[in-house]
Amino acid sequence: MKIKVGIIGGSGYTGIELLRIIHQHPLAEVTSITSRALQGKKISDVFPNMHGLSELVYSLPDDKALFECDIVFFATPHGVAMDNAESFLEKGVKVVDLGADFRINDADLWSDWYKMEHSQPSLLEEAVYGQPEIRRDAIKNARLVANPGCYPTAVLLALKPLLESGLIDISNIIADCKSGASGAGRIANQATLLCEITESFKPYAVGGHRHFPEIKQELELIAGKPIGLTFVPHLLPMIRGIEATIYVDLVDSSVNVRPYFENAYKNEEFVKILPEGTYPETRSVKSSNYCQISIQYIEHSNKLVIMSVIDNLVKGAAGQAIQNMNLMFGLAEKEGLTQIGLLP
Amino acid sequence: MKIKVGIIGGSGYTGIELLRIIHQHPLAEVTSITSRALQGKKISDVFPNMHGLSELVYSLPDDKALFECDIVFFATPHGVAMDNAESFLEKGVKVVDLGADFRINDADLWSDWYKMEHSQPSLLEEAVYGQPEIRRDAIKNARLVANPGCYPTAVLLALKPLLESGLIDISNIIADCKSGASGAGRIANQATLLCEITESFKPYAVGGHRHFPEIKQELELIAGKPIGLTFVPHLLPMIRGIEATIYVDLVDSSVNVRPYFENAYKNEEFVKILPEGTYPETRSVKSSNYCQISIQYIEHSNKLVIMSVIDNLVKGAAGQAIQNMNLMFGLAEKEGLTQIGLLP
Amino acid sequence: MKIKVGIIGGSGYTGIELLRIIHQHPLAEVTSITSRALQGKKISDVFPNMHGLSELVYSLPDDKALFECDIVFFATPHGVAMDNAESFLEKGVKVVDLGADFRINDADLWSDWYKMEHSQPSLLEEAVYGQPEIRRDAIKNARLVANPGCYPTAVLLALKPLLESGLIDISNIIADCKSGASGAGRIANQATLLCEITESFKPYAVGGHRHFPEIKQELELIAGKPIGLTFVPHLLPMIRGIEATIYVDLVDSSVNVRPYFENAYKNEEFVKILPEGTYPETRSVKSSNYCQISIQYIEHSNKLVIMSVIDNLVKGAAGQAIQNMNLMFGLAEKEGLTQIGLLP
Amino acid sequence: MKIKVGIIGGSGYTGIELLRIIHQHPLAEVTSITSRALQGKKISDVFPNMHGLSELVYSLPDDKALFECDIVFFATPHGVAMDNAESFLEKGVKVVDLGADFRINDADLWSDWYKMEHSQPSLLEEAVYGQPEIRRDAIKNARLVANPGCYPTAVLLALKPLLESGLIDISNIIADCKSGASGAGRIANQATLLCEITESFKPYAVGGHRHFPEIKQELELIAGKPIGLTFVPHLLPMIRGIEATIYVDLVDSSVNVRPYFENAYKNEEFVKILPEGTYPETRSVKSSNYCQISIQYIEHSNKLVIMSVIDNLVKGAAGQAIQNMNLMFGLAEKEGLTQIGLLP
Repeated sequence: MKIKVGIIGGSGYTGIELLRIIHQHPLAEVTSITSRALQGKKISDVFPNMHGLSELVYSLPDDKALFECDIVFFATPHGVAMDNAESFLEKGVKVVDLGADFRINDADLWSDWYKMEHSQPSLLEEAVYGQPEIRRDAIKNARLVANPGCYPTAVLLALKPLLESGLIDISNIIADCKSGASGAGRIANQATLLCEITESFKPYAVGGHRHFPEIKQELELIAGKPIGLTFVPHLLPMIRGIEATIYVDLVDSSVNVRPYFENAYKNEEFVKILPEGTYPETRSVKSSNYCQISIQYIEHSNKLVIMSVIDNLVKGAAGQAIQNMNLMFGLAEKEGLTQIGLLP
Repeated sequence: MKIKVGIIGGSGYTGIELLRIIHQHPLAEVTSITSRALQGKKISDVFPNMHGLSELVYSLPDDKALFECDIVFFATPHGVAMDNAESFLEKGVKVVDLGADFRINDADLWSDWYKMEHSQPSLLEEAVYGQPEIRRDAIKNARLVANPGCYPTAVLLALKPLLESGLIDISNIIADCKSGASGAGRIANQATLLCEITESFKPYAVGGHRHFPEIKQELELIAGKPIGLTFVPHLLPMIRGIEATIYVDLVDSSVNVRPYFENAYKNEEFVKILPEGTYPETRSVKSSNYCQISIQYIEHSNKLVIMSVIDNLVKGAAGQAIQNMNLMFGLAEKEGLTQIGLLP
Repeated sequence: MKIKVGIIGGSGYTGIELLRIIHQHPLAEVTSITSRALQGKKISDVFPNMHGLSELVYSLPDDKALFECDIVFFATPHGVAMDNAESFLEKGVKVVDLGADFRINDADLWSDWYKMEHSQPSLLEEAVYGQPEIRRDAIKNARLVANPGCYPTAVLLALKPLLESGLIDISNIIADCKSGASGAGRIANQATLLCEITESFKPYAVGGHRHFPEIKQELELIAGKPIGLTFVPHLLPMIRGIEATIYVDLVDSSVNVRPYFENAYKNEEFVKILPEGTYPETRSVKSSNYCQISIQYIEHSNKLVIMSVIDNLVKGAAGQAIQNMNLMFGLAEKEGLTQIGLLP
Repeated sequence: MKIKVGIIGGSGYTGIELLRIIHQHPLAEVTSITSRALQGKKISDVFPNMHGLSELVYSLPDDKALFECDIVFFATPHGVAMDNAESFLEKGVKVVDLGADFRINDADLWSDWYKMEHSQPSLLEEAVYGQPEIRRDAIKNARLVANPGCYPTAVLLALKPLLESGLIDISNIIADCKSGASGAGRIANQATLLCEITESFKPYAVGGHRHFPEIKQELELIAGKPIGLTFVPHLLPMIRGIEATIYVDLVDSSVNVRPYFENAYKNEEFVKILPEGTYPETRSVKSSNYCQISIQYIEHSNKLVIMSVIDNLVKGAAGQAIQNMNLMFGLAEKEGLTQIGLLP
């Protein structure tokens, strides 16, 4: 018996990515997918990579079939999941929100960044931030999981071993991050037209990006105290991939940090530490759920540079959501997620 | 017991694609991979998408382990497979050549186009041209399969239903084809640097391309008589994908050709006919073994336009090779080949 | 005294291209630019390549300053220029429409393709189709010029020498054309997001594209009789550039057509015939007003293949409009248009 | 009488860029261009954007015509210019080296990074580092100019106002830099094939890049004392453009640094400070000699983020070389350099 999955808001890139991955998952199947705008359309008419492979049709968001699912994924703009999660939870349907509604523990802070009241502060308390490499056990027992943002995933995995071991000056962390355009979604938007962003590169939201409080919260939970973080996102002229180049100061410059990384991730399927002197490329993880990390110590400036790459739509969204689902249902964590990065 | 696969010449894009697909194939495994230049290197050092997923190391082309394989794939420049295939066949190792050595039935014609003598004309007679949708049964019984070229695959699948049914004027077929740059391989080459081909588009080899005699031969075998073909390839500023736009004249303009296409491919897993009025995009089949085909009749000029797309590295190379392997070993034809196109 | 230029509808790619080129034109200057949506904004805030180089501000379309211009360019959706051109002409302001309103001589045919009534059939009669290489003299004396479409420019320049000399079978012309995404404009549109079209290629509007009647009309005017044309456009994963690969049958296969091309364009600044055996790349003309053309005879199928490339925003739009302006004002035809293609 | 320019080593991207810009320069012309590999070929056969626009032919590096030039540009690998500059200088021919031979004042340091002995330490003393915005007067009087590297240009212009005014902690400067692939040149190289780098992003040379000592030297000359610099370059999947995101700590967080930038560059043609809250895009300066700079103060971490963009082939190479030439010959500094960024 396969796990029955519902996808709420399946018209975007996270939606098709959930469809693609679950279609190849041996123990799960999508039984309902909703989209107000696409109601009545076959998914293969919207995403022709599915042509001939699925007869699934978009239904309206109030589709009764959703309540017969074992789990629903919200792939919706912020504000939707918080208003609707409770109705699923009370019927015993587990919920993973790929949006931002349950990522920030502090409802007021959430409101500051997302410019609306949080309608379900009590659910906030219950929700588990779904970074398996950080809180696997809590996820296993969760009814409601807040799937991490794409930038936070890349940054948290890069810094976790350092914060846990107290090796760096946590007051001065710089995360220079770059993302492919798929992070901006599939909504018609002049700013993400091919002609606006291909063959170009730019920083954006330098004054403040919504992933900042999320990264900061999680880093502080690991460190156990306040941290100082500068986070600047940039837009890459390509579809998929996030790279984070992170600059930190070592507390003790004589310490070799590599063993700490290797140790922290030695049992992790999806986090790989690259050999000394090699650096990650986003393409190595394209279409896959892997995160690859390199570390380089710069002696003359006593800086440690950590570089991590993920596919923002997989480990940074749909793949991690399915990894969370696997944990929530007691499956092997990597079930359905063993696709290798598409290179070239 | 998995099928033991050897890859000869595994340093290029066809090599990594064979590795990627077979790694996810439930009934086959790569046990030997050779490359003169990369001997001794781990495949994950050459193709970092494999990092942490395989300990396979490149060996020299004379690796004894190759002869313990059930099948070897030649992913080599032309001339290599013809000189070496016999040594495998006589030991009972099946052979699929992803190069061009056994594609042209006429050794003299082959020599004209490939500028060298054919060293094994007798093997030419035995070799089966490995287009499963055209000669599935012969492939099942073959020891030696000539895996089709990328352009030929796209063109043959687009024209087969028309030639079989005698619906078109075969004296005047025009195939305007476009390919991503991965078709040019991974060799260092000024002409395929990113700076030379991104943000640009061009025809090439207009006076004559080596896939021309291959396409012509196969079309004539289907039609049973000589055809007239004009074939112009173009280079696309992207990695993967071939699109063929083919122009033919209908013999009887009152005939609806669509049913002929649907009929021809109704039992084919990997060939999909798109709905009337929709046209294929190469991205729909990116990373997958599918071919998608559209047909459009232009009434005012009585032209039938057939458009087909494949991923040149999958259905146009490694995927089709594995499809052939599945047939040669009596496996389900689609085993290990059900990856869905990566969109976006 | 510089020519005073007004740009009506200057918010799109044609608008910025007019600005860019005229800014470097020694004998013209933009004195008014309008956009309903951008009214009050500095052009450098909309197009930051102009930062620090111009203080021009968008005004509303009823800007009085437009009537003090010597010429106005309409860079508007179809329907706008036809309603407003007369008001400028009667005040002695010349008009070039970069849209489609005056390109089709037959008002009914125009209505069929553009799905609205033509409001100014009398102006249609006066308007001159502004392909300088075809009707330079008429343009010199025109008050109202219909600037050609991008595909028509590439196709007409490729076929003119053949039609004029009666060398080909005009009943069977096939134009397989490919365009960069800037041809689709700057409007927010899901279909032209980077994530929808980069790393992909597709035919579109195969059943009928609005440039078809325009190409047919002009070809028939040159040939003096009806022609048969099949025209299939495709979308390239890049910003700028059109390539047309055109297939025709020679009437007399013994004729060498090359001298006809060289003769036809020997005095043309902006049309270059490439050497035998070389083929055009769109990048060679990127950012420039040049058209490069190659010809290749395919003996075995008696096809002549003509390939032409232009930058769709320059020779296919803004550059050709300025070329027309130069002619209309008696300037040297190439004034302000001598930028060389940006390579790489 | 135009300035006669020779280009030594004109087969690469810097060479064609010099040709393109000088071809449009009203007061200079290329009279000799050399390339051992391309000797005897027309430049238009190598760079078809020049087709029909120049009859220039590549000569051997010992071309006598070079000595009749007023100035020669070395666009050669390091080691060539230092061995040959003297022979031109002694004949009164000025020299600009676009390579690295004269950029590092300390011959031993140069040898450490470039792995060869410096053959002309005395010329090192004479050579002027050609950043016009830093040492315009020295350039005006120079016989020998070391044209700056691309990364150094972007970083130096971003930091100069801060170092001059003592506003930042110079012991902790982080420069996270990203470059298009044209910086890697036109040599056949597997690592810069389209298929290797498009749709991907990666850091490289993290342990040490040759532009590091150059940046450090120039920053220290401005600051008048040692600085601490961490410099990490990354490769962008595109042709042209460098973006530098630079993180520094303000000495006094109450100081508004914007006026210092505006003041420093108020008379500079080629450096533009963008408005508060807007950030630079590399495309805004594509094909142009401009540098655009934004500044953003991050209050919560007391970091100042400075972002600058240039076209690495223009302001980062050929354009700046011509700007230097203009200064060396007493021309208007911007002569021939007023092309506007190509957008889109």
